[in-house]
Amino acid sequence: MTTIGVKEVLYVVKIGGNIIDDEEKLSKFLTMFANLSSPRQPAGLGVRKILIHGGGKLATKLAEQMNVPQQMIDGRRITDAETLKIVTMVYAGYINKNVVAQLQANNCNAIGLTGADGNVILAHKRNHPTIDYGFAGDVDAINTTLLKSILEQQIAVVMAPITHDQKGQLLNTNADTIAQEVATSLSALYDVQLIYSFEKSGVLLDANDDSTVINSINPTYYQQLKSEQKIFAGMIPKLDNAFAALDRGVKKVIIGKAEQLTDLITGNAGTSIVHE
Amino acid sequence: MTTIGVKEVLYVVKIGGNIIDDEEKLSKFLTMFANLSSPRQPAGLGVRKILIHGGGKLATKLAEQMNVPQQMIDGRRITDAETLKIVTMVYAGYINKNVVAQLQANNCNAIGLTGADGNVILAHKRNHPTIDYGFAGDVDAINTTLLKSILEQQIAVVMAPITHDQKGQLLNTNADTIAQEVATSLSALYDVQLIYSFEKSGVLLDANDDSTVINSINPTYYQQLKSEQKIFAGMIPKLDNAFAALDRGVKKVIIGKAEQLTDLITGNAGTSIVHE
Repeated sequence: MTTIGVKEVLYVVKIGGNIIDDEEKLSKFLTMFANLSSPRQPAGLGVRKILIHGGGKLATKLAEQMNVPQQMIDGRRITDAETLKIVTMVYAGYINKNVVAQLQANNCNAIGLTGADGNVILAHKRNHPTIDYGFAGDVDAINTTLLKSILEQQIAVVMAPITHDQKGQLLNTNADTIAQEVATSLSALYDVQLIYSFEKSGVLLDANDDSTVINSINPTYYQQLKSEQKIFAGMIPKLDNAFAALDRGVKKVIIGKAEQLTDLITGNAGTSIVHE
Repeated sequence: MTTIGVKEVLYVVKIGGNIIDDEEKLSKFLTMFANLSSPRQPAGLGVRKILIHGGGKLATKLAEQMNVPQQMIDGRRITDAETLKIVTMVYAGYINKNVVAQLQANNCNAIGLTGADGNVILAHKRNHPTIDYGFAGDVDAINTTLLKSILEQQIAVVMAPITHDQKGQLLNTNADTIAQEVATSLSALYDVQLIYSFEKSGVLLDANDDSTVINSINPTYYQQLKSEQKIFAGMIPKLDNAFAALDRGVKKVIIGKAEQLTDLITGNAGTSIVHE
């Protein structure tokens, strides 16, 4: 069923590290992701979806087992050569392939990719004036042609947060950023809904109380919340990302709990980030 | 340039573990793989190619670092749950993504897959009357539709030797077998040349003398060599695989040295396995 002039819906779902670490929550989330339906398609048919996963604690655990010391600056991992090897193994290997296998078990055909595969995400090594982040990548371009060709075959894309520089170097890349870049680059082709799912119920007025979810935030309200210091500092980059995505063509951004994915999409849970 | 009624050539190249372990040899091999041209296409255009890699010693080394004891029976790794995690990380993560990134650096667009991705290789857990191989997979079916769709976009496929059972279980699977199954399944669509490349110059009359390469072996000569015990025992499964592939529609099987890939394909090196 195609309606001329109306774009199909594409869900771009980022799943946070804490969910990846919890087998039961991950399984519940993946069953919901597998069964996502689109308002313009019968259930299970013609739904375009991309899942972007982070890494969780598995990489840190493996680094410990391998005696590779980990350095963090402002919550970002410094990716030396040994750490790049570890995150490539854990993110692109263990997590990505287990997520794909679980989706297949839920009758959701899926393909797992890094940015190097099909040159899907081209990046460059971060060039910072004072901090050497090592093999950390900043995104330059998304290859939408290949992504579209996979999505149109009714195959979900599962992205690991590893990119490349087209000179043979793999790069560790922030999964939130990948989600935003993938979502905005596909906005010309689809009505994109970008969902940041994690362990909390949404953007909270009280970071310790899951019942204080804000249903909807527009730029004015966001400024007000920030000036009143009511936004938990860790949420600010996510919200900045969300508003940037809206400005760049994404139709809707939703932030909320991974195990409520279906309700996030129907608007029955989480925080919607909207224009004025 | 398409000739009606004539199928395009597809190269299915298996690369052995010893080459994977040798950075310099691997780099030389990947440059040649990236530049492979087809007799029916101008250089660099319209060449269909699939690379299947094994694992080498990296998985064994990581198992040592992680204190996971490895058990081998008849040269096959017994894949317990921890070993499956290791081979998934090393084969599908580290090796597969570094090979893809190196091909991209050589201007060869490539996509790395396991059998779980796009349900490309469906397998089942090996059921052996006396030996428990653990999470070892035997191949049931190849999804040629997705492979064809990728190949027709001028993207090379890089396969890691990991499959799945469509019930959520990843399975460690012999790379030689994957090469044979992928080659035969695509024979209806392409003129397939199957190349087993490794550290030796081909099938040798004297296993210790690289100058005793046999140029060509047909079934009669193979029987004669076997009855005279002139074939190195380790070569026999490879040759049995090769003849089985010819019987199942593959046009040509070539065995030889990875760093001579171009010469293997032009017939200037290695051993050709042929019908009578």
